[in-house]
Amino acid sequence: MSRTISLAVIPGDGIGQEVVAQGLKVLTAVLPQDVKLETKQYDLGAKRWHATGETLTDAELEQLRQHDAILLGAIGDPSVPSGVLERGLLLKLRFAFDHYVNLRPSKLFPNTETPLAGRPDIDFVVVREGTEGPYVGNGGSIRTGTPAEVANEVSVNTAYGVERVVRDAYARAQARPRKKLTLVHKNNVLVHAGHLWKNTFDRVGEEYPEVTTDYLHVDAATIFLVNDPARFDVIVTDNLFGDIITDLAAAVSGGIGLAASGNINPAGDFPSMFEPVHGSAPDIAGTGKADPTATVLSVALLLRHLGLEAEAVRVEDAVTADLAGRAAARTTDEIGDALTVRVAG
Amino acid sequence: MSRTISLAVIPGDGIGQEVVAQGLKVLTAVLPQDVKLETKQYDLGAKRWHATGETLTDAELEQLRQHDAILLGAIGDPSVPSGVLERGLLLKLRFAFDHYVNLRPSKLFPNTETPLAGRPDIDFVVVREGTEGPYVGNGGSIRTGTPAEVANEVSVNTAYGVERVVRDAYARAQARPRKKLTLVHKNNVLVHAGHLWKNTFDRVGEEYPEVTTDYLHVDAATIFLVNDPARFDVIVTDNLFGDIITDLAAAVSGGIGLAASGNINPAGDFPSMFEPVHGSAPDIAGTGKADPTATVLSVALLLRHLGLEAEAVRVEDAVTADLAGRAAARTTDEIGDALTVRVAG
Ligand SMILES: CC(C)[C@H](C(=O)O)[C@@H](O)C(=O)O
Ligand SMILES: CC(C)[C@H](C(=O)O)[C@@H](O)C(=O)O
Repeated sequence: MSRTISLAVIPGDGIGQEVVAQGLKVLTAVLPQDVKLETKQYDLGAKRWHATGETLTDAELEQLRQHDAILLGAIGDPSVPSGVLERGLLLKLRFAFDHYVNLRPSKLFPNTETPLAGRPDIDFVVVREGTEGPYVGNGGSIRTGTPAEVANEVSVNTAYGVERVVRDAYARAQARPRKKLTLVHKNNVLVHAGHLWKNTFDRVGEEYPEVTTDYLHVDAATIFLVNDPARFDVIVTDNLFGDIITDLAAAVSGGIGLAASGNINPAGDFPSMFEPVHGSAPDIAGTGKADPTATVLSVALLLRHLGLEAEAVRVEDAVTADLAGRAAARTTDEIGDALTVRVAG
Repeated sequence: MSRTISLAVIPGDGIGQEVVAQGLKVLTAVLPQDVKLETKQYDLGAKRWHATGETLTDAELEQLRQHDAILLGAIGDPSVPSGVLERGLLLKLRFAFDHYVNLRPSKLFPNTETPLAGRPDIDFVVVREGTEGPYVGNGGSIRTGTPAEVANEVSVNTAYGVERVVRDAYARAQARPRKKLTLVHKNNVLVHAGHLWKNTFDRVGEEYPEVTTDYLHVDAATIFLVNDPARFDVIVTDNLFGDIITDLAAAVSGGIGLAASGNINPAGDFPSMFEPVHGSAPDIAGTGKADPTATVLSVALLLRHLGLEAEAVRVEDAVTADLAGRAAARTTDEIGDALTVRVAG
């Protein structure tokens, strides 16, 4: 019996094109004989917007929905006003496909650079809520551009939305050896949203007696991320706090060139989307300097999500071995080739 | 001609008591002969709330307003529900006295510990907005405690509020040798608030042609704070982003035991309030382990705000010399005594 994976590919802008090419190479090489890969490329991003004024049409959204998963490179360019592509494309996909689990593992691989002295033992995963909070786009302004302007942004949090992501995080913590879950919020200031998060966290926790829990304010969490990142196992947090601490987590654990992410709809009602945490880095686009490792690690998350656990591990092991052995600087292509050889071998 | 400083002292909870005592010792020692210090202590915080249910009465607020400045230790205790003292006391003071400039310098002093490899050259100051943003307390929930709960938090940003703090930040940048100002926000997601901040930043910048400016998303800012903190000179940012990045800044530049802050009303319509960035640390309260240096450095900010620049520098120099010479671990008292001797000598 053979299986076909229908994958939507959105290379996007800048280095997105280059890193996605490597991700696809590795994906193709790692798949077992009886799994066929069908890809369809979607030309979305800055170029398309400049040419047509479109970010993502309803027809495209409908087509994307037919795929099993989406692989995305990076979106964004300084020539496009801030927010246009983010809200009109990237966040639109996350919201339309109900990607409520934004999964971001942090691991300090061997032989990688960290700004931290003493190379702490970093191996945790952040479960960032992906469909609520200050990201809902519920903002506006009056008297815009005048000295009397008022601009508001509303963070919307629902029991429905918080509970499902908290449950997902508990299940992940339960499945890991250390079984530790930390809630990160700011419930001493954002008391209403904080109350909902903390109560949900405590209540769902009763169903997971083996999971050790703690709570940190987001400001304190940043301190621990640099002073004692080894303390973390699984972190669950809201959309904005998750955005902030996962960039910090990436920085301390080997840099943004290694940080993978999955925008996951666990129920499988919609395709999940996998993308590196980094941006389109227009300054190095086309120079061959982009590290495709974060995209390749995102491919591992994609494989795991599709039930191909052994293949996911093979990709991750290839990255570990590749980093351990690396010496001189290599091009995007060279890294992709090295990883392709490893997963195939 | 002699002058009298009328200082309100709020020791608060936990180590607040201990560190404030040292701050006052140093303050008393550094003041010139012709400046008299009159202090009045206000018993506010967890104990008071447990005893009376009060956080801060209108009468107390009115009394506090009569002082030239306020020195605060730390507020908060795990026995008090999260948010009660923060909203009812600490934030109430910041809002009532229109502390729109929350000033938080970060400097890596000699001989201090940093989690960063290579001891970068850190010397910047964060100008955090203190009276708007998600801190306004404009939130609420419906169907609270049910599976249909919705909890919202509103970030309120006004042209009035953003412009005055941005102006303050430009003036500070202009007065520093490097003359660099970075705006930190998240204007690709929080587009309305972000638009107001960025437009104001650009417009006011035209009046400061000598100041070099740049913009960073808050997530990217956390990366630079660990990878290249030396790049920062002055940062201006909103209330919540400022809360988060100043804890991170404190962590990378010697730890929270050294981080000072001023809640400043530049116009002088209300007393400004000076406090260490750290919390009440109930776990070490009474052990003599609390480092009073952050409070002493907050006293330096207080002196500077009151026009006593030479004395402010004397306190900062004492801290630098003390840290450079420190060897064994010392108690709260011993550190306070050493600093007192230095500023008096
Ligand atoms: C590009 C931006 C909208 C996005 C976010 O804020 O979520 C990015 O920073 C990320 O973390 O994936
Ligand atoms: C205690 C809390 C309300 C406060 C804040 O969030 O501003 C603290 O973290 C700070 O930074 O002074």
